[in-house]
Amino acid sequence: MDKRILNKVKTQTPLVHLITNYVTANDCANAVLAVGGSPVMADEILEVDEIVSLCSALVLNLGTLNQRTVNSMFAAGRKANQLRKPVILDPVGVGATKFRTQIAKQLLEEIQFSVIKGNISEMKALATGQGSTRGVDASTHDLGKDLGQVIALAHSLWKDTESVIVISGAKDIITNGKRTHIIENGQSIMAQITGTGCMLSSIIGGLVGATPEQVFDSTVTATALMGVSGDLALEKLNEIGGGPNTYRSLLIDYLNKVDGALLERRAKIEVR
Amino acid sequence: MDKRILNKVKTQTPLVHLITNYVTANDCANAVLAVGGSPVMADEILEVDEIVSLCSALVLNLGTLNQRTVNSMFAAGRKANQLRKPVILDPVGVGATKFRTQIAKQLLEEIQFSVIKGNISEMKALATGQGSTRGVDASTHDLGKDLGQVIALAHSLWKDTESVIVISGAKDIITNGKRTHIIENGQSIMAQITGTGCMLSSIIGGLVGATPEQVFDSTVTATALMGVSGDLALEKLNEIGGGPNTYRSLLIDYLNKVDGALLERRAKIEVR
Amino acid sequence: MDKRILNKVKTQTPLVHLITNYVTANDCANAVLAVGGSPVMADEILEVDEIVSLCSALVLNLGTLNQRTVNSMFAAGRKANQLRKPVILDPVGVGATKFRTQIAKQLLEEIQFSVIKGNISEMKALATGQGSTRGVDASTHDLGKDLGQVIALAHSLWKDTESVIVISGAKDIITNGKRTHIIENGQSIMAQITGTGCMLSSIIGGLVGATPEQVFDSTVTATALMGVSGDLALEKLNEIGGGPNTYRSLLIDYLNKVDGALLERRAKIEVR
Repeated sequence: MDKRILNKVKTQTPLVHLITNYVTANDCANAVLAVGGSPVMADEILEVDEIVSLCSALVLNLGTLNQRTVNSMFAAGRKANQLRKPVILDPVGVGATKFRTQIAKQLLEEIQFSVIKGNISEMKALATGQGSTRGVDASTHDLGKDLGQVIALAHSLWKDTESVIVISGAKDIITNGKRTHIIENGQSIMAQITGTGCMLSSIIGGLVGATPEQVFDSTVTATALMGVSGDLALEKLNEIGGGPNTYRSLLIDYLNKVDGALLERRAKIEVR
Repeated sequence: MDKRILNKVKTQTPLVHLITNYVTANDCANAVLAVGGSPVMADEILEVDEIVSLCSALVLNLGTLNQRTVNSMFAAGRKANQLRKPVILDPVGVGATKFRTQIAKQLLEEIQFSVIKGNISEMKALATGQGSTRGVDASTHDLGKDLGQVIALAHSLWKDTESVIVISGAKDIITNGKRTHIIENGQSIMAQITGTGCMLSSIIGGLVGATPEQVFDSTVTATALMGVSGDLALEKLNEIGGGPNTYRSLLIDYLNKVDGALLERRAKIEVR
Repeated sequence: MDKRILNKVKTQTPLVHLITNYVTANDCANAVLAVGGSPVMADEILEVDEIVSLCSALVLNLGTLNQRTVNSMFAAGRKANQLRKPVILDPVGVGATKFRTQIAKQLLEEIQFSVIKGNISEMKALATGQGSTRGVDASTHDLGKDLGQVIALAHSLWKDTESVIVISGAKDIITNGKRTHIIENGQSIMAQITGTGCMLSSIIGGLVGATPEQVFDSTVTATALMGVSGDLALEKLNEIGGGPNTYRSLLIDYLNKVDGALLERRAKIEVR
């Protein structure tokens, strides 16, 4: 983790290009703004090349995937690779259908990703090409896996992709092959609202976009920021009362309010 | 009503497949999560069959309908019928345009729905094939109808479709031909935010998905839950202050917080 | 400004047809409802003619533009012109890509708009056909322009388009050639959430839809309402605490709560 990255995003305001789903697009835009980036959602193939040229990072999110936007994702990803701009993959729901699994496989073949972030079921489907994914949430079967197995999966994916790998869960695993960090922040209530995973890949885009020379540190910092914000939002919710939608609003508030000092104080990161 | 259904959703976490509009998709996903279900939005025709195979219920919502998603709705609906999974129809805006009215008519011809939920204008358009719908809200003309007429419309639609019929309004009418329940919960402020109708059909999907052998009871319970949550949210709003967007957040909070005992205490259901 | 317009929207409930982006569609719908209008989002070319026939105003928003919805925008705009219904253009991100700039140019050639609202970068791109737009936010370069230059740009655009021109920013410039008003309400925190610009064009649709004989006054009133709501939301946020997402919710609340008297008291409008 590098707490200074939070400041860098706010001073540089990196433009983050997101080709994403319509369910959580608003939350993703607000999350990028909260950390100090500037989001632009554009999925028309006639303009993605130019948007990529303007942006500091590209985020491809496979939720509500369709044949039209898939073509835009390939075009945008190739362009970003040409221009050496970081590309983040959020393989939402991969493993649930052959279409999604196949598109994800082709994306991995054609695009070099800087970061890939998914839950255990999605990441297992990426690794094996086969799915036990239950919709967009991790399957219960997969959640039972022990930490050693999850780390082994992360390493295996890193070897295959040369991307920083984030496997999100009660403990988030992040590895770049050389370094592996485990983050224990975050709360189970985060699974009671939609969009926390999508927001995480979006703010990874913001932080990596601001500091592309520090992809691993940016990814760890973004993941810790989401977890710490989740912790603080629950503390606040317990104080003021309310349910999951109040929690969601607090979570985005904290993505904006947590600064480097607070992040450092609250982040629980184990370095393996 | 069967208050135990609320617990069943939370223990079973039914997967609810929604093919829905991009205006309220986020609210619908959060509403399904709030009641304990797991939402998955997928509208690509290449994958809807598999998503239907994984899910416990399918919700088709005609808001922001387009030719691409219409094809996916027919495919998903047919597959759900084959697999005997419950399908819920929310005929948003039917009657406003020939396209919408015709698509709704074809859906009724080809798909067997477990539940159809709409406002008085939409349901009249479904019954007659002609519309006085004013956009997506009930027309003032239709709102003047007396309760007897609305009940007669519900019975007529039930005869035509063999679906549980919900006509939402100041009083919600629910019938399966044999039983007719009238729910008097809910507040007029609910019409000042977008998405309350869409959230209702979404949580009907959640409850029916958890208890497909109790379609009528699940539908009554979901409708009562939405109304009671609306009542409690207004009481809270009056206490803490704020406008319609604060109300919207409270409403989703209560969808999560209202348990069987509270629902039973607050539901105002007249059995005819 | 004409404070009576706020009442007229609430008594007339104008139907506002929005062809808009999926990022802020929910906020736009809630904003239209907050001021007293009734929003309908419909972008399928087979039905836009009929929706336009039902509506009081049409809003075309170029965010997440694609080839399919572009066709619907042209069809809807032409129909609205035929029926002499007001059309509002929000040229989101114009200048960022050739596709967007070209579509905007063609829209200006084929459709007569009642109001065009954009930030300085978007409006400069409209005027010159060339862009320095940085994604969807105004570029820093453009923000440095002095007020006289911005007013000159507004006048030039008015001459080219015969539309009421709104250039939003720290100071909002509104002109119809004969009259030019400068509004100083609004807060920089509004740029930390997505959708304030889209909500502004949406409520302009609501107010112009209710009083099409007063396009300039409606536009000034809507812009002042957004600014004053932004001011009041920040005062409230400072009182209760919270971050940008709490602010967003307060902002929509105030769009509903600010009445004519409060608007008049708080609006800072300079008439040139």
